[in-house]
Amino acid sequence: MSYNLLKIMIILALISPVYAARDGGGVEPAPNGIELPENYRDWSVVSSSHRIDNHTLRVIVGNEIAVKAARTGQTNPWPNGAILGKLVWKEAAQQHWPKAIAPGKFVHAEFMIKDSQAYENNGTGWQWARWVGTEQKPYGNDADFSKECISCHTPVKSRDWVFTSPAQLP
Amino acid sequence: MSYNLLKIMIILALISPVYAARDGGGVEPAPNGIELPENYRDWSVVSSSHRIDNHTLRVIVGNEIAVKAARTGQTNPWPNGAILGKLVWKEAAQQHWPKAIAPGKFVHAEFMIKDSQAYENNGTGWQWARWVGTEQKPYGNDADFSKECISCHTPVKSRDWVFTSPAQLP
Repeated sequence: MSYNLLKIMIILALISPVYAARDGGGVEPAPNGIELPENYRDWSVVSSSHRIDNHTLRVIVGNEIAVKAARTGQTNPWPNGAILGKLVWKEAAQQHWPKAIAPGKFVHAEFMIKDSQAYENNGTGWQWARWVGTEQKPYGNDADFSKECISCHTPVKSRDWVFTSPAQLP
Repeated sequence: MSYNLLKIMIILALISPVYAARDGGGVEPAPNGIELPENYRDWSVVSSSHRIDNHTLRVIVGNEIAVKAARTGQTNPWPNGAILGKLVWKEAAQQHWPKAIAPGKFVHAEFMIKDSQAYENNGTGWQWARWVGTEQKPYGNDADFSKECISCHTPVKSRDWVFTSPAQLP
């Protein structure tokens, strides 16, 4: 083995504990063909929210393209290749701080994937996907399920279909 | 330039946009000597909370050691080298979804750093630090400021001084 190859392997080993690809085995793609993004659990924070209508806490994360766009204000439109993920939990009492609400049961992870050419046909330039529960069951009965996503996101069409504003973070 | 060196540079370039060290210039260490952790903005999500007593939204993130520990249940005690970060914002209305609360003004980023030997003297095995506002002003007038942190965390002494329970995430 060459010394340089060894160096590459050391670099890969150093970044692998957290950034390694998940096994992904067993998680079915969404009915529109979208695959669960690899390593979404390792993505960086874009924002957060607490929906008081359906009692859920959310953390919005992004892949590298999305996070870079969020931090540099390139969010209308978001760049091709950006993926935003929403990690959603039912709200629960923070056991040790009574005046706080914390994540309870995991509800779902959902994603918006930007590709203005590949997803031009649905009129948005985005594709949507969601995996429900810890069993990560793909949401939707057929490929048309994303019409529901688009309908809900139509009020923010002028914001490139995205509700989230990146949180201020120095 | 050798081909292998080129490969290393390509790998570094690929991981650099998000994982690059922050410039760090200008951010003063905490009065107890703790430096602002590099790249904390890029860390992965451990949990989230909404404190209704002081009207703040929080995302709890961790360095690689902490995230690995969180995912494998090694949290009592947390391993040496683990750093937990709390990103804190004032709550605000989600402009485009009236029934949601979203991050408003950035309040502070605060950290707990585990080293059972280095920080054995304060009786916890942890050290604390906080940087306030987007100006990232170190919190505390002198090195004793962490007594305030420890006092507040004493109710969770039996949980290795940590309030946060890692959120369920498949």
